[in-house]
Amino acid sequence: MTSTKPLILVSNDDGITALGIRTLVEVMQELGEVVVVAPNSPQSGMGHAITIGEPLRLYPSKVFEGVVAYECSGTPADCVKLAKHWVLKDRTPDLVVSGINHGSNASVNVLYSGTMSAAIEGAIEGLPSIGFSLCDFSPMAHFAHVRPFIKQIALAVLEKGITKGIALNVNFPAHSEQPIKGIKICHQAHAKWQEDFEERQDPYGRHYYWMVGNFVNFEKDNQNTDEWALAHNYVSVVPCQYNLTATETVQKMKEWNL
Amino acid sequence: MTSTKPLILVSNDDGITALGIRTLVEVMQELGEVVVVAPNSPQSGMGHAITIGEPLRLYPSKVFEGVVAYECSGTPADCVKLAKHWVLKDRTPDLVVSGINHGSNASVNVLYSGTMSAAIEGAIEGLPSIGFSLCDFSPMAHFAHVRPFIKQIALAVLEKGITKGIALNVNFPAHSEQPIKGIKICHQAHAKWQEDFEERQDPYGRHYYWMVGNFVNFEKDNQNTDEWALAHNYVSVVPCQYNLTATETVQKMKEWNL
Repeated sequence: MTSTKPLILVSNDDGITALGIRTLVEVMQELGEVVVVAPNSPQSGMGHAITIGEPLRLYPSKVFEGVVAYECSGTPADCVKLAKHWVLKDRTPDLVVSGINHGSNASVNVLYSGTMSAAIEGAIEGLPSIGFSLCDFSPMAHFAHVRPFIKQIALAVLEKGITKGIALNVNFPAHSEQPIKGIKICHQAHAKWQEDFEERQDPYGRHYYWMVGNFVNFEKDNQNTDEWALAHNYVSVVPCQYNLTATETVQKMKEWNL
Repeated sequence: MTSTKPLILVSNDDGITALGIRTLVEVMQELGEVVVVAPNSPQSGMGHAITIGEPLRLYPSKVFEGVVAYECSGTPADCVKLAKHWVLKDRTPDLVVSGINHGSNASVNVLYSGTMSAAIEGAIEGLPSIGFSLCDFSPMAHFAHVRPFIKQIALAVLEKGITKGIALNVNFPAHSEQPIKGIKICHQAHAKWQEDFEERQDPYGRHYYWMVGNFVNFEKDNQNTDEWALAHNYVSVVPCQYNLTATETVQKMKEWNL
């Protein structure tokens, strides 16, 4: 960390008025100069979507007192692109943080997560980036218990740096009477949503479908996974890469002689 | 491959009326029984978005003669979920294919791609899955030259299988006078979009922003990459995993003693 205040870019996917981003902004204000560019509407489940073929809107926001903030019509990934290449222009953030998401982004949820896509977009830009999520979907979720961990992890990243191209996926257990036991560096659990669809009829006789589903964890007993850590009241930290190449399969497939 | 006809699920992100999916359906009809579930509108750049908090529409479509097909109001990932858990119910596809996308999904584009997210959703379901893309954005792009390669790759996957959790990202050079040289199994190139934003004013005096950008390839000379293969007129095949854990960084970060 340099002697000047670090520049910290904040985004999220629940929208600029969510409680989670408010908490994150407050903690980041203790660490450096904060600039917020966040969606003007909820963008949960947007994954790494970007806006193609339509222009973006960007308006200054007074949501956070004493903080330069903008609300954007686009996705979380759009927000980071606009922040990096338009709002901040020649300034490079020392840290990109996203969240705190209302809901878990552990295991396979990382793929569907707008919160984590903002962080991964930061990693694509070569910036140290962290996505924070709380395992509580409620808009009124309690965030106070995670503040010290956010500060600790963000400070560690500012001090030690992360390998370029890596974004951290940090998930917190929901608030409970049990204090959090500590932080675990983990692997993404092998899990999926077992979807089901509920068919209904609209007042005009046409069908529509609600996606519902159960979460299935295929490695419940694996203590190296984020899901295990969270189930046992630890903070989970998974370093994520956006290079998806399955190296072993590359070797195997070369033997197919296609 | 069993002696019965394989069941092949087809989706895409350009929408069910695009030329690319028409070509893909035609080739797949030569290989097995085809069921299509594809978006009813273009979904380019949707990444791995899913529809949360809104219901989905699903209507039978007569776009393809003699093929069971549905158009869906959701994203490509939604389409695969609906296909697997509603349309096909107790039947399990032998292969999930997505595309042919109008435009490259090589290198970092894999993250923004709805086409590849449909394939990755197939991989999450444990199914052999392939996304096909052509390096030509035109809605009227020529697809004839890639048909034999699609057939060859799909047949190989049906015969040999792929490791569970892996989806293939297959990209084709645009049609040109030079015949395609062959197929290369590759790594995802380290590249990014260097965005720029063009500011305009609407008739009411409010600003809006068009995202434009240049593609920057950080490893132009690396012959193991998909971008190199495509630039040299080869078909690129990158096996992709959806477990994003950066294993080396897990080890490094454990030494931080957080």
